[in-house]
Amino acid sequence: MSKKIIIVGGVAGGATAAARLRRLDEKAEIVMFERGEYVSFANCGLPYYIGGTINKREKLLVQTVEGMSKKYNLDIRNLTEVTEINREAKTVHVKNVRTNETYEESYDVLLLSPGAKPIVPKIEGIENANHLFTLRNVPDTDRIKSFVTEEKPKSAIVIGGGFIGLEMVENLRELGIDVTLVEMASQVLAPLDYEMAAIVQNELKSHGVHLILEDGVKAFKENGSKVILNSGKELTTDMIILSIGVTPENTLANDAGLRLGARGGIVVNEFLQTEDASIYAVGDAIEVVDYITQQPAMIPLAGPANRQARIVADNIYGRGKKYAGTLGTAVVKVFDLTVATTGNNERILKKQGVDYEAVHIHPGSHAGYYPGASSIHLKLLFSRENGKIYGAQAVGRTGVEKRIDVIATAIKGNLDVFDLTELELSYAPPFSSAKDPVNMVGYVAANIIEDGIKTVQWHEIDDIVEYGAVLIDVREPSELEAGYIKGAKNIPLGELRDRLGELQSNETVYINCQVGLRGYLATRILLENGYDAINLDGGWKTYSMAKI
Amino acid sequence: MSKKIIIVGGVAGGATAAARLRRLDEKAEIVMFERGEYVSFANCGLPYYIGGTINKREKLLVQTVEGMSKKYNLDIRNLTEVTEINREAKTVHVKNVRTNETYEESYDVLLLSPGAKPIVPKIEGIENANHLFTLRNVPDTDRIKSFVTEEKPKSAIVIGGGFIGLEMVENLRELGIDVTLVEMASQVLAPLDYEMAAIVQNELKSHGVHLILEDGVKAFKENGSKVILNSGKELTTDMIILSIGVTPENTLANDAGLRLGARGGIVVNEFLQTEDASIYAVGDAIEVVDYITQQPAMIPLAGPANRQARIVADNIYGRGKKYAGTLGTAVVKVFDLTVATTGNNERILKKQGVDYEAVHIHPGSHAGYYPGASSIHLKLLFSRENGKIYGAQAVGRTGVEKRIDVIATAIKGNLDVFDLTELELSYAPPFSSAKDPVNMVGYVAANIIEDGIKTVQWHEIDDIVEYGAVLIDVREPSELEAGYIKGAKNIPLGELRDRLGELQSNETVYINCQVGLRGYLATRILLENGYDAINLDGGWKTYSMAKI
Repeated sequence: MSKKIIIVGGVAGGATAAARLRRLDEKAEIVMFERGEYVSFANCGLPYYIGGTINKREKLLVQTVEGMSKKYNLDIRNLTEVTEINREAKTVHVKNVRTNETYEESYDVLLLSPGAKPIVPKIEGIENANHLFTLRNVPDTDRIKSFVTEEKPKSAIVIGGGFIGLEMVENLRELGIDVTLVEMASQVLAPLDYEMAAIVQNELKSHGVHLILEDGVKAFKENGSKVILNSGKELTTDMIILSIGVTPENTLANDAGLRLGARGGIVVNEFLQTEDASIYAVGDAIEVVDYITQQPAMIPLAGPANRQARIVADNIYGRGKKYAGTLGTAVVKVFDLTVATTGNNERILKKQGVDYEAVHIHPGSHAGYYPGASSIHLKLLFSRENGKIYGAQAVGRTGVEKRIDVIATAIKGNLDVFDLTELELSYAPPFSSAKDPVNMVGYVAANIIEDGIKTVQWHEIDDIVEYGAVLIDVREPSELEAGYIKGAKNIPLGELRDRLGELQSNETVYINCQVGLRGYLATRILLENGYDAINLDGGWKTYSMAKI
Repeated sequence: MSKKIIIVGGVAGGATAAARLRRLDEKAEIVMFERGEYVSFANCGLPYYIGGTINKREKLLVQTVEGMSKKYNLDIRNLTEVTEINREAKTVHVKNVRTNETYEESYDVLLLSPGAKPIVPKIEGIENANHLFTLRNVPDTDRIKSFVTEEKPKSAIVIGGGFIGLEMVENLRELGIDVTLVEMASQVLAPLDYEMAAIVQNELKSHGVHLILEDGVKAFKENGSKVILNSGKELTTDMIILSIGVTPENTLANDAGLRLGARGGIVVNEFLQTEDASIYAVGDAIEVVDYITQQPAMIPLAGPANRQARIVADNIYGRGKKYAGTLGTAVVKVFDLTVATTGNNERILKKQGVDYEAVHIHPGSHAGYYPGASSIHLKLLFSRENGKIYGAQAVGRTGVEKRIDVIATAIKGNLDVFDLTELELSYAPPFSSAKDPVNMVGYVAANIIEDGIKTVQWHEIDDIVEYGAVLIDVREPSELEAGYIKGAKNIPLGELRDRLGELQSNETVYINCQVGLRGYLATRILLENGYDAINLDGGWKTYSMAKI
C-alpha cells in the first residue's frame, strides 16, 4: 500500500523533501501544507529585492504552487495551517486561513519543516511602532518594499547586526537611506571573532552607516519615530528593521508533546526523527549537532535545511541515512566585502573549554603581479596538539568564500593543518598564487606545531610591552610611518642578523611586522641564534584592524 | 658542523627550498646556482606581460638576487651554470656564463631544481624561422615583447593549444593580432575531455581566433613567414609561438648516472630523494606519482614544485616527510572563460583500464534570481562501485575554479560522491545556491549509484537512436526550437504521467532534456511505472556543446 506523507511547511526543507519523496515513490500521497501563500520562495534573496538589486518580484517565486504540484504530482495546500497533531490517531488538524474551514488529515509519516520566526521582544512601545518591520517571508518583503517605495523614508534604524541585519543595512543604503545599525554586542556578526568583525565594521562606516555597538533598544516612542536606547541615547527614524535573530517555530511540536532542546529547537535523532518514529523534522526549527563540538546547536541556514530534507526523504524510504551535524559554513556580502566563516570561532571554543591556537594571515586573493588582487584576511583556529581544524573566518573583496569552502571541505574530510599545506588548489595568476592562501594558513599553523614558533595575539601585545618586554618591529622604517605599536623598536629584517648584539641574550624578544611573515622569519633567526622569540600573529595588520 | 647545501635552479622549486632551508638552519651554507639572470620570477605571469595586462616588467621580478640573498642570507650565483655533478667527490662543476670561468663547488646535500624546457622539434626550416619564439623565462619574454612592440606583427601562429599556448593566444589577441592556433590533437587543452574542450574552442572562435585542429607543422618556409601544415595547408604569418609542451631539464642528472623515467623525468622516492641519498630533486624536472592512479607521471605545475621544495628542505633536516603525489589541479583563463580541472580525465582512466562513470551538470554560478549568474559546466568522473572520485573538469565564467578546488580538497580528504552531497559550502545569493554545484554533482552521481539511474553519454545517443531506440525529449515545445536530437519525440515532463500510454511497456526509453535534471525526474517517473528508462547525461546542453 502506498504511503501518505504530510509535510508541514513548504519553503526550503519542506519543498526539497517533497520533490525527493516523489522521486523515490511515484505512488505516495504527498500533502504539503504551507501557512503562507508562497512555497519554495527565494528567502535569501528578499533583502536584495527590497534594495533593487533583484529587480522583479517574480524572481523571488522560484516555484509556484501550480508548477510544483504538476512537476512533482503533489497535493500542495498553501494558506493552510496545521494547528494540531494527534499522534495517536496519526492525524493533523488543519485550518484554511482564507476560509477558516478546518479539517483533519491523516498521515503515515509526518514531516515538520515549520522554520523559524523573527524574535520580537516585548520592548516598551513596540506595539505602537508603525514603521517597524521584520523580514522573513514574501509578505514581510512586500510591506517593506511598498513602504520604501511609497513613503521614501530618509532614515532607517536596523536593530541587530547579524546576516539579515547587515544585508538590510546594505540594501537600504543602496536606496539612499541614512542607516543606523544598533547592535547589543560589542561587534556585528556573532559568528566572527572581534578582530574579524572589526574589518566589517570599518566597511560599514566607510559606506556611511552609523554604527552603535553595545547598546540596545529600551523603548520606542512617538509611534516608533523615536527610539530610546539603553544608554539613554535617543534616535529619530522613518523606519525600523528588527533583525535580532530567529526562534524556532515549535508550538505545533511542543503542543504534540515532542521534546524541545534548551533553545526551543525540536529534538531529533541522527536520522532526523523525533521521539515519535512517524514524525521527522528538518530545517531552522530543529536542534542540530555542531559538527565540531558535537554539542547541540541552533544553526538556521538554508543549505543544511536542504540536505536534511533529502536525508529525511531517503529515511522515510528506509535508507537509514545519518545527518552528521552542521558546520555552520556561511557567507554574507557587506557592501564590497565578502565575509565567510566555517566551524567554530574563539568564543565557542572558549565556552567549550577547547584548547585552541589562532593564526591570522593577509595574503593576496591572487598573484600580486596580476592586476586586481586584494587582501584576504584569513583566520584559522586549530589544535596545537594534533593540528585538527576547528574553524576559519575570512574577510576580503574577492576569493574569500572560495577559501572558506575549501577549509569546510577539509574539515569534512578530517584533514588537519598539515594537510592544508598539501592541498593542490588551482593556480594561475588571475585566480590564486602558487601557494594558495589555504596552503599559507596551513603553513603558518604547521610552523607553530612543528617548528616551535610561539606567537602572541593582537589583544595581548600591548600589555606585554607595557610590562617591559622588548618588541622589535622588523619592517622597513618607511612602513612605520603609517603607525606602529607603542614601545616597539625598529630593526628591519635585513639588518637583524647584524644587529643581534643590540639584544640581551637572556630576554624574551617579541617581534612584529606587517602581516606576520617577516616576523616569522625574524623569529626563526632569533630562535636559531639562541634567543627566545615570539611573533605577533597577523602582524601590524591584524593589530591595527582591531585596535585602530 | 653546519651543512653545505647546493641548489641547482633558482626559480619556483629552488627559491622556495632555499628560503625554507634558511628558516630551518641559520648556520647552513646555502649556495643557489641559477643559469639565467633572474631568480624566483613570475613565470606564470609572462604571457600577461606580453599582452599588457601586467604593465610593468619589474612586476615579473618577484625577488631580486640581492633582496633574496639578504633576506635569507643566501649565496645566490645567477648566470652560473652547473655543468657536471661528481657524486663520489660530492662536488659540482660550475661555469660562470658571463666570464666563462669554471670551478668546483663541494656539497653535503645537492638539490636539483632545473625545471623543464620547451620542446623544439626538428621541423624542416625551423632553424631559419626568424620570428619563432618559445616562452619559458624572462629573456624569452623580453624577446617576444620587444618583437610585438617594435615590429607590430599583424598575424601570429601559435603552435600547441596547452595552457601556455592558450594564454599566448589570448594575450596576442589583446594586442589586436590576428591569431591562428594550430593543434595536433582533435582538441585544445589535453587535461580536458573533448566535450569540455569544445566549450573552450567555441570561446576561442568567438574571439576571432582561427582554430586548426588535428594538424601539425610539416615545414617552415621563407624564414618562418610561411608555415606548411601536414594537411598541405599553407599559412603566412608575422610571428610564431611554439608551445607544444615542455621536457625535463635532465642532462645534468642523466650525466651523473641518476635514473630517469620513461618520459625523461628524474626518478625520486617518496622523500623526493634520487638514487643518490645526497641528491634531492623537485619541480618540473622530476617524475611524480599521479595521486589518483599512483602511476608515474610528468605534471609540470608551479604549486606542486613549491610544495615539493618545502618537503625536501624539511627532509634535508631529517623530518622524513613524504610527497603524496600530484593531483594535477590546474586552471587557465581563456578570454572570458575560466577552465579548471583536477585528477584524471576519461582518456587517462581509459588508458589505466579504470571502470568509471561520468556525469555532466550545468548549474548557475550562484542563485539565478540574483544578477550576474552564469552557467558552470561541471563534469565529474567517479567509480560506480564505491563512489570514489577520480577527477573533475569545469568551464564557465565565474566561480569555476572554486568548485574544482573544493573537489580537489575532497579527493585529498578521501571523500566520495556521497560526501560531496553533504559538504557544507558557503551560501548567499551572490555566491552560490543552497545546493552548491558541488553538492549537485554529488547528488547526480549518487543518484546513479543509489537510485539505479542509468545514463548514456552525448557521444552515444545518436547511434542508439539510429538503431531504432525511442528517445523522449521532455522539454517544453518552445525549447526545442533552438535545436533537438534527431529522432527525438517531444513529451514535456508535465505531461509525461498522462501520456505513459504512448510508450510500449517492454521497450527501453531514452530521455533527454536541457541539462539532465528534468530527464532525471522523467527517468524516475518511468522507472517507478515499470519502464526501463535511461537518461541522457548533461542533456541537450552537453550534447550540443560537443556536437554543434
